[in-house]
Amino acid sequence: MIQLSINKAAFLNALRITKQAIGSKVAIPALSKLKIVVSNEGISLTGSNGQISIENFLPASDKDASMLISGTGSILVEASFFDSVVAQMPDVTLELKEIDNHQIIVTSGKSEITLNGLDAEVYPRIQEISKENPLKIKAGQLKEIFSETVFAVSTQESRPIFTGVHLMLTDNKSLKAVATDSHRMSQRIVELENMTEDFDVVIPAKSINSFRNVFNNDDEEINLFIAHNQVLFQNENISFYSRLIEGNYPETDRLIPQVSDYTLSLTFDVSELRHVMDRARLLANATSNGTVKLTVSGDSVVTTANSPEVGSVHEDMTVLAKEGADIAISFNPQYLIDALKVLKSPEVQIRFISNVRPFTLQPSIETNDFVQLVTPVRTN
Amino acid sequence: MIQLSINKAAFLNALRITKQAIGSKVAIPALSKLKIVVSNEGISLTGSNGQISIENFLPASDKDASMLISGTGSILVEASFFDSVVAQMPDVTLELKEIDNHQIIVTSGKSEITLNGLDAEVYPRIQEISKENPLKIKAGQLKEIFSETVFAVSTQESRPIFTGVHLMLTDNKSLKAVATDSHRMSQRIVELENMTEDFDVVIPAKSINSFRNVFNNDDEEINLFIAHNQVLFQNENISFYSRLIEGNYPETDRLIPQVSDYTLSLTFDVSELRHVMDRARLLANATSNGTVKLTVSGDSVVTTANSPEVGSVHEDMTVLAKEGADIAISFNPQYLIDALKVLKSPEVQIRFISNVRPFTLQPSIETNDFVQLVTPVRTN
Repeated sequence: MIQLSINKAAFLNALRITKQAIGSKVAIPALSKLKIVVSNEGISLTGSNGQISIENFLPASDKDASMLISGTGSILVEASFFDSVVAQMPDVTLELKEIDNHQIIVTSGKSEITLNGLDAEVYPRIQEISKENPLKIKAGQLKEIFSETVFAVSTQESRPIFTGVHLMLTDNKSLKAVATDSHRMSQRIVELENMTEDFDVVIPAKSINSFRNVFNNDDEEINLFIAHNQVLFQNENISFYSRLIEGNYPETDRLIPQVSDYTLSLTFDVSELRHVMDRARLLANATSNGTVKLTVSGDSVVTTANSPEVGSVHEDMTVLAKEGADIAISFNPQYLIDALKVLKSPEVQIRFISNVRPFTLQPSIETNDFVQLVTPVRTN
Repeated sequence: MIQLSINKAAFLNALRITKQAIGSKVAIPALSKLKIVVSNEGISLTGSNGQISIENFLPASDKDASMLISGTGSILVEASFFDSVVAQMPDVTLELKEIDNHQIIVTSGKSEITLNGLDAEVYPRIQEISKENPLKIKAGQLKEIFSETVFAVSTQESRPIFTGVHLMLTDNKSLKAVATDSHRMSQRIVELENMTEDFDVVIPAKSINSFRNVFNNDDEEINLFIAHNQVLFQNENISFYSRLIEGNYPETDRLIPQVSDYTLSLTFDVSELRHVMDRARLLANATSNGTVKLTVSGDSVVTTANSPEVGSVHEDMTVLAKEGADIAISFNPQYLIDALKVLKSPEVQIRFISNVRPFTLQPSIETNDFVQLVTPVRTN
């Protein structure tokens, strides 16, 4: 039966990673539990919400953990409750001791808390994934690709395929992420150093948001394994499983305009454009269609929004470069703000075709690494 | 008509004080508005939610405001919207210019926002209060008295009188604040330096919470004026009005035990006792009556809580001093935690009469300046 002592802070850190997978509202009661497995090699902490599952291994050799294992075994405990108990223990060290009837005693200083657990055998098994030929990528790079696209997914469950990020490997080394909600689209491509087998999957946005909270070290390498209905991200100690969204993601390459289509190119300072849109949005939110109008006429570039009830805004804008024809185009400023938020470059190039065709944002038009599209709104 | 230029940050600070009185959900449409009155002496900003009203005056002489007034007048604007617009203006300075039809143009840098306003005449008038013979007290001292009591008010609207803090002046200089929800009570008394006319009022807890956000300088002196149905707290530039709760507050002095009644006195370290109760509460929350049990038996002082479903807690406690008979008493740990939170002293003295009578907490039993009561729960 389980018996060990461990540094509280190290144990809590490990718990908090696994907790990312454990929801408060779960259909299957066992999924509100944390599975603790203690072997002579260390402690494994497993949690799942049915969509994602995390197995986090804290090795006995971890110096920060000051682990002393004198009994091995496994148990299920109520996850959120166990976490609160551990967090509030008074001493730097705590002891865990399993007793009969699947109970576990947590002791620290003069405090002793006995918790009712369950037989670990009732916990659902995580489906195995073949651990062959992984895609290898730095955690920081994967997080960057995800954050540059995931904001553009649809939140409407009526078309589930669009609630995920489309992740593809082509030519064995070109990794492409795409997300769209049909009003805007974001596409990011990176060329990897190692060759891997091509794949084509759609990862739920919720899994991607959890992923970012689980892998904290941007410099470490992640192994990515794909099975027919799930994906596994793995580092030395953490295995992060997510279900995939089933179905075929529509073809999106054809949505990106040809260079010859563009009639106007504007270069803006990202931060300044963002502030203009923040102000314009205040007024746009009070209008019936929620749009702002960008009017380019000769040297004048102006953003306006007009609400008969609330008032109007008029912003003379500074463009860093301009090339092409005049335009007057209306759009939802929130889509432009979201697009600007994920740009790390100080400048952005925005190219237009007409006032009824999507316009594109790129940090630089030298490459097509990162392209975003925003669809205008037709107004009278 | 209004025309002025002003430092954005200074104007925003003044706005945010007045905004404390303006609710998002208001029965009277005019109360979602901010009233701006510009005279040659400065800008007055007034807001109200019907319960509290704040008039904040920003004098033209204020150096931080760099105010330049070239036109006077008054207008009503949508409060939350106006605040957002001002906050997002690009430059350090902004200009306000009233035009026809109660519109106001806010200009800053290359940004120009026109807002629809209303005639200031439609704004409800704040009832005058006679400005004679105020009670004078430091803002910090008043905030302290309020925070030491307001947490103990009732949140149940069925007995409105208990949703406020009972504030009394007796003997022209003894200020007493009392709050109770019938499960616990907190009473704080301070002796003032100046003599003032006695009063006896009940101030809504919500007003007290807003008060704490409005008067930021603890060292400044506040004048407190009482009328039959409202109270006014005033410093040099801010007038903070609150309605009073009508009715007679029940007599509470008789609830505080006589010294001769006590059978047991325990002295604890406040922080340690708080942590013990935080842990015990985790288990208590999972029990049917939500209580913990404190058992004093000879030299042993132990807190326990037991939930058949979840588990149990056992805490051996350190007492700094102990005098009196054994006891086993059950209570809601949240009440003790709330009481400990407002203590600034490192130690607390808790005195008991029996397991069915309220126990008292005091930072020191030398004086009765600050006494808190917690009622036990009868268990089988």
